[in-house]
Amino acid sequence: MNSVQFTAESSSNGVLERDFTVNGVPGVLWSPASTAADRAPLVLMGHGGGNHKKHPAMSGRARLLVTGCGYHVAVIDAPGHGDRPRTGHDEAEIAELFRARAAGEPEGPIVVRYNDHLAELAVPEYRATLDALQALPEIGTGGPVGFWGINMGTAIGIPFVAVEPRVTAAVFGQHWPDVLAAKAQQITVPIEFDLQWDDEHISREEGLALFDAFASKEKSLHVNSGRHKELPRFEADSAVRFFARHLGGAVTS
Amino acid sequence: MNSVQFTAESSSNGVLERDFTVNGVPGVLWSPASTAADRAPLVLMGHGGGNHKKHPAMSGRARLLVTGCGYHVAVIDAPGHGDRPRTGHDEAEIAELFRARAAGEPEGPIVVRYNDHLAELAVPEYRATLDALQALPEIGTGGPVGFWGINMGTAIGIPFVAVEPRVTAAVFGQHWPDVLAAKAQQITVPIEFDLQWDDEHISREEGLALFDAFASKEKSLHVNSGRHKELPRFEADSAVRFFARHLGGAVTS
Repeated sequence: MNSVQFTAESSSNGVLERDFTVNGVPGVLWSPASTAADRAPLVLMGHGGGNHKKHPAMSGRARLLVTGCGYHVAVIDAPGHGDRPRTGHDEAEIAELFRARAAGEPEGPIVVRYNDHLAELAVPEYRATLDALQALPEIGTGGPVGFWGINMGTAIGIPFVAVEPRVTAAVFGQHWPDVLAAKAQQITVPIEFDLQWDDEHISREEGLALFDAFASKEKSLHVNSGRHKELPRFEADSAVRFFARHLGGAVTS
Repeated sequence: MNSVQFTAESSSNGVLERDFTVNGVPGVLWSPASTAADRAPLVLMGHGGGNHKKHPAMSGRARLLVTGCGYHVAVIDAPGHGDRPRTGHDEAEIAELFRARAAGEPEGPIVVRYNDHLAELAVPEYRATLDALQALPEIGTGGPVGFWGINMGTAIGIPFVAVEPRVTAAVFGQHWPDVLAAKAQQITVPIEFDLQWDDEHISREEGLALFDAFASKEKSLHVNSGRHKELPRFEADSAVRFFARHLGGAVTS
């Protein structure tokens, strides 16, 4: 069980892209095309709310890690996202979010509770995916593993990393502390955390409280001016350097 | 007047180092050895309290900018520092700082007022140095100019950049908002700002208040876990990339 079933494969500009499923959950694994058989660190990523495993933010970050560091990178669709069906609960929560947005009400309470629900489902899926990927010879067990997820990727990633000792470095950001701060207190690996100084949804105090909660001895906070969706592109480059420092492997560009 | 008088020259590992004075104030100019005659952006730096223009933090950062970006980099000794004489006022303030430190009293009030005094003297010196350096053919007028200074370098740099329209990007960090916040409100160029999350001298609230004060549309805050003197080395690399983004010129490594 927990084995990787590859369903499609393509390659472009030095990056091998392989679609897979693990226990029926669809994911994608990006690897260096020329050295895909070489053992290298793995970075698991989590996509944002309303997006999916192959959103340009995911494929773009994967390309940076694959071509810049020679890493393997995998992401799975969150429950109710991408190629996965929505339940009645998903539909109701999404309708409630759109209603609040249209009414000019705060989105936070709805996003927090819905993402918490999705994280409960997704954490065991991420653990099973990691089991399965580590059974591949080009990843293997015992090697360095990172996690990178912002927004909903953080809502799933913090509970995942809190219970998953195989993850040794993580990049998070842009979520509320309500249910996540207690789990962040269980995380001791190095982290980099992004927040937006003029976020219209997450207050400065909320963002700083979540960063503060991590028990990690090594932690960095990157704040940038701008609204929720204006996280600068250069923070992706910074995250890649963060993983290069902590997971090792040759940075080739 | 305000002309550069070169007093010494040496070269190592691709970096040309030229000592100079402008109106008697001693400084050092680092340039690419192979292309020192080519026009390139200039970064002015400010050293920390109790240090001097050739402290390893200065020469190390200069090497990153010269070899990484092909820039010219200059720093001058602050009043009472390096090769410059101490006045009776300098001696009295330093003695007061050491007394407070030994007594376990807060250093902030003394550092804030002493650095403010030094900044009043140093700002016209930095402006004269910039005039003089821009008269050199390899720098010239109208080209991009950056400023980089942490600690006392920020206490001098914020008032300098606030009144100096030739500076178009700056890296600051690790100082108190008391006298600097009002001047930071006059700064609109892109900034990167460093603070330490566990600084034993500057509280989180003080550090965040100074970052918040900048009027810059583009500003980034880098917070790292650790005490006052534990600013990670990788923040120097980050500052170099910040200047490369904003001052232009080829990043060669």
